[in-house]
Amino acid sequence: MRIAVIGAGAMGSIYGGKLSLKNDVYLVDTSPAIIEAVNSGGLVLNEGGNDNTYHPKAVTTTASLEPVDLVILFVKALYSRAALEGNKGIIGKHTYLMTLQNGSGHEDILSEFAPLERIIIGTTEDNGAVLAPGHVRRGGQGNTNVGMLVPDAENFLPKLKECFDACGFNVRIHSNISQLIWNKLFVNVALSAVTGLLKCEIGYVYADKNAFALTKALLHEAVTVAHALGLEADEAKITDEIISVCTNSPHGITSICADLRAGRKTEVATISGSVVKAAAKCGVSVPCHEFAVNMIHAMENLK
Amino acid sequence: MRIAVIGAGAMGSIYGGKLSLKNDVYLVDTSPAIIEAVNSGGLVLNEGGNDNTYHPKAVTTTASLEPVDLVILFVKALYSRAALEGNKGIIGKHTYLMTLQNGSGHEDILSEFAPLERIIIGTTEDNGAVLAPGHVRRGGQGNTNVGMLVPDAENFLPKLKECFDACGFNVRIHSNISQLIWNKLFVNVALSAVTGLLKCEIGYVYADKNAFALTKALLHEAVTVAHALGLEADEAKITDEIISVCTNSPHGITSICADLRAGRKTEVATISGSVVKAAAKCGVSVPCHEFAVNMIHAMENLK
Repeated sequence: MRIAVIGAGAMGSIYGGKLSLKNDVYLVDTSPAIIEAVNSGGLVLNEGGNDNTYHPKAVTTTASLEPVDLVILFVKALYSRAALEGNKGIIGKHTYLMTLQNGSGHEDILSEFAPLERIIIGTTEDNGAVLAPGHVRRGGQGNTNVGMLVPDAENFLPKLKECFDACGFNVRIHSNISQLIWNKLFVNVALSAVTGLLKCEIGYVYADKNAFALTKALLHEAVTVAHALGLEADEAKITDEIISVCTNSPHGITSICADLRAGRKTEVATISGSVVKAAAKCGVSVPCHEFAVNMIHAMENLK
Repeated sequence: MRIAVIGAGAMGSIYGGKLSLKNDVYLVDTSPAIIEAVNSGGLVLNEGGNDNTYHPKAVTTTASLEPVDLVILFVKALYSRAALEGNKGIIGKHTYLMTLQNGSGHEDILSEFAPLERIIIGTTEDNGAVLAPGHVRRGGQGNTNVGMLVPDAENFLPKLKECFDACGFNVRIHSNISQLIWNKLFVNVALSAVTGLLKCEIGYVYADKNAFALTKALLHEAVTVAHALGLEADEAKITDEIISVCTNSPHGITSICADLRAGRKTEVATISGSVVKAAAKCGVSVPCHEFAVNMIHAMENLK
């Protein structure tokens, strides 16, 4: 397959690197330092303690390229539209767009560039960390959960699974991918928003009773929206899951917290903000999410 | 009158000092530095640029005193109960308790120490600042608005007015003092909470659209509660008032913000928290206030 991976952060590099084993892969990023590193010394993935080198073609622009079979979007969600707009030449009539980005509702932007019939959404249980430009550690590995919001008319997902699995991934195709995405979102909206609002470590969310009250309020709203969308959500069970994340990783820092501490824009719009959007579609009131999203944006803008 | 002023901060000192001109005043505070300063050199109020010295009796304990005619509570609201408990020997059967503290709902604690018939609530439009122990600047002067939540059976308020006015205050007696208190509370819940949540100057509340969205959400809830309580509240007019405070004092710091920046406990419980309590009494839902109060408490506890 001809594949373009847009965004050469940790996850983009892992997917772009591994997929290049058996595919024609373009790794697209706006950072000249990363592109130069990958093109001169290859993309180095530290896997299980060993440095392995992969050779995707790293480019800052796709202007001269023909449309590809698959575009995988791995930029921070707030740059999704700009990234697709800047690379729309490689999105042809037969190109599939795929997102495994954090949060939910990414299809809203992707569908500006391709019909829902060619949009693949999902979650990845893999994780990684950037060590240096062109050097990424592949951390925990898990499933790559994928699905579509409409029937897979061309039966593309099985081909995608075969292609990815041959390169070291473990793709699972889901008929109800929204449920998977929301399962991941529940913990995310509760923990990411609160740790961002307080700029605190994950452990504080459960250790402080007022912080935990915020978490519970946000989770309750998200569960209400999920039910209105026809999804399953067991509030007590998710609460236990949140408590166990807080207890097991007390010093963990969420991406929203890290971004705010560093003075960067956050992905709150596609995490908590996606609950606000979904709530509006199904007529549910989510005042705490609206408050949290406004507050995190106000924090982003505060110098 | 025999008067005890509990809390020798800026406002307690101004009222305690001025009232000592014609009354037997005890100024009660737990700070030995203040008590020592007042007892050795007098209480110095800087009024209109001049230092004037007053001589209330400054004490750390009232254990040996007989009940007084009037107790005025000027401690930070979160210490109200402890302050009254620690000085309950001066609260006799005929003692009036008075609060001009910021926020609302102070009668809940005061009524643990005296019946509503002897509780005076209100607001002060005066302001001041502590310059040093025993040295306070009297800033802007305005009305001292007072009233009771039940009929003034002993016709005490006119006597109080006469007493205070003779010492340089301008007391106004209100039949609907709750309205006055809420008029002040609206701006307070909108600005104090948001500047506290963001630890920002007052100007940012209107300058940033997301911060202003928080402000509007809080104001809307407070207005809804006020209406449910039978009070008047013109949301558009109060919004204009808030905008004009933001525009006129952009670098202003609210007490909640100052307390959080200094790592101190705040008065949020009797500002935003009083809206939550009032809402519960009249069955109104105030999720944003609950969220803001929990969040400010979580910020207080975060080290």
